[in-house]
Amino acid sequence: MPYTIAIDCMGGDHGPSVTVPAAFAFLRGHPEAHIILVGQENVLTPLLSTAPDLAGRARIHHASEVVAMDESPTLALKNKKDSSMRVALNLVKDGAAQASVSAGNTGALMAMSRFVLKMLPGIDRPALCPVLPTVKGHVYMLDLGANIDCSADQLLEFGVMGAMLASALDHKDAPSVGLLNIGSEDIKGNEVVKQAAELLKTSGLNFIGNVEGDGIYKGEADVIVCDGFVGNVTLKASEGLVQMLAFSLKEEFSRNAFTRFSALLALPVLKKFKARFDHRYYNGASLLGLKGLSIKSHGSADAYAFGQAIARAFDAASNHVVERISARLAELHARQEEKNTGKESL
Amino acid sequence: MPYTIAIDCMGGDHGPSVTVPAAFAFLRGHPEAHIILVGQENVLTPLLSTAPDLAGRARIHHASEVVAMDESPTLALKNKKDSSMRVALNLVKDGAAQASVSAGNTGALMAMSRFVLKMLPGIDRPALCPVLPTVKGHVYMLDLGANIDCSADQLLEFGVMGAMLASALDHKDAPSVGLLNIGSEDIKGNEVVKQAAELLKTSGLNFIGNVEGDGIYKGEADVIVCDGFVGNVTLKASEGLVQMLAFSLKEEFSRNAFTRFSALLALPVLKKFKARFDHRYYNGASLLGLKGLSIKSHGSADAYAFGQAIARAFDAASNHVVERISARLAELHARQEEKNTGKESL
Repeated sequence: MPYTIAIDCMGGDHGPSVTVPAAFAFLRGHPEAHIILVGQENVLTPLLSTAPDLAGRARIHHASEVVAMDESPTLALKNKKDSSMRVALNLVKDGAAQASVSAGNTGALMAMSRFVLKMLPGIDRPALCPVLPTVKGHVYMLDLGANIDCSADQLLEFGVMGAMLASALDHKDAPSVGLLNIGSEDIKGNEVVKQAAELLKTSGLNFIGNVEGDGIYKGEADVIVCDGFVGNVTLKASEGLVQMLAFSLKEEFSRNAFTRFSALLALPVLKKFKARFDHRYYNGASLLGLKGLSIKSHGSADAYAFGQAIARAFDAASNHVVERISARLAELHARQEEKNTGKESL
Repeated sequence: MPYTIAIDCMGGDHGPSVTVPAAFAFLRGHPEAHIILVGQENVLTPLLSTAPDLAGRARIHHASEVVAMDESPTLALKNKKDSSMRVALNLVKDGAAQASVSAGNTGALMAMSRFVLKMLPGIDRPALCPVLPTVKGHVYMLDLGANIDCSADQLLEFGVMGAMLASALDHKDAPSVGLLNIGSEDIKGNEVVKQAAELLKTSGLNFIGNVEGDGIYKGEADVIVCDGFVGNVTLKASEGLVQMLAFSLKEEFSRNAFTRFSALLALPVLKKFKARFDHRYYNGASLLGLKGLSIKSHGSADAYAFGQAIARAFDAASNHVVERISARLAELHARQEEKNTGKESL
């Protein structure tokens, strides 16, 4: 069966001018993939007519409304039933597509994904799991913002979901899972983190123990779990730091004629360096814990970045990420149930 | 009165080979300062004899023991009563010095500072407050590791202490204080953070509201408060990120003859860029909430970095940081007391 990706073409800072070209480029690079362009027909039809070569694999699904980037998630959920974001998710729920991608309003996408696709048993809210670059390759880190106060059980579930994502996308049998903490010793951290460590140790995952902040970028683990508050602050601080360094490097290189000349010579090197950590390459965070695949692209993504998010959605769909997570979580919850029943019967 | 700094000469990864030259260089740059070199006499005496020009302003205070970098803080506190770290703190307590500096074991320094200098009324544990570079200058951020689970009241106290440190060292009347959070809106964050925001709003501080992770390096506030878990993870993640970028930049520049040549030309620029964010320049974190000044240097500090920590200690002493914090906290606690009495009498 060919995999089909539903694309919210109206979302993001740039809308169809970015999402549609990205979708076409993706299709051309993935001859086995299909897409559904979701959004206003009168906008999308002329765009699709420019790509007759893709006619058999791309079709339009009309959605009359658009969720604004600054719209309240609660209101969007209530009022925007025919929005491109929601209709794309409906297509996944109905089985017409195997994953959806949106660059729209994060809060609204969270709320709609949860409402339309529903959570897997035992999971309360989706966890946002981006991919970050490391010295050794990349790391999946979750949760990055949706779950503020997490229980030890939730951190364990993040470990399971992240590990299943990593094993599906990177084809690793037992991806290593680390717990973000303020020291590598067992006695460090708050009570929740200490309890989570105990749970992770007996989870059957390849748990490598605590990872400190610098371990994220040192590539100490394939998956790193933390609560959404710490994850969000850490990720945004990293973004701010990179912006500060890039700004200053530019400033130093444009100080005078000599520095500008040296910049010219160093340009190929600087470009390669930049490409290595290009945040556009890493675009596309997975919302995990849902009964279907929903991928969040950065709102400001350009066509290249949005294409990466589509490719990630396709990879996740064709590697059955949801089925893997669902099976493993069911196992985990059954074991917990057993333990609790055991305790009760004592 | 000349200010005297007690220096734990035996602490840190390098001990006297770094701390003593740093102390001498500091004295030569600060003709009004005095120092006490604390540590093993037989090691320090020959070193001091090499600096006859400083004889009037530097003296040795013998301490027979050394706290190891990996020693348990509890055991160090119990057993190392004649350690250079502890004796330096004793000198501050007794008034022989106005501040102490140590590059030793962080946990032990925390425990000993608390035991020897004692906490200001109402404060439970010292908060670790480093200085970080920003696009606009620098920011004081606390807590960076000592207080894991913080109450809203503690976050408010961090705000007061950080603001007093910033106003003393940077001579600002009303330094801006931000609360680290996952969004700029009031409704964001966990319960503790929301409560802290309410307290900070009516604190009389120049509270600017929530600051997201990227706001740290954008220089959105002079002081940023957060709990020790989030602070520690964020700081270490930043360190790891910078290491990753530096490593990769080096790798790209040493790829072939051409890139090596361009590196040669770019060297002055890269050096200036590096100097701008040189972590050695920012060395010296203040332990706040104590009845005396205790400054923590990075364990791996070289002589330049350790000198920065000594200079920071001297600045804090001559600008009466402890007195300012103590007065402002007393005011705060009196107001809280009043409020509580008011409530009770209702």
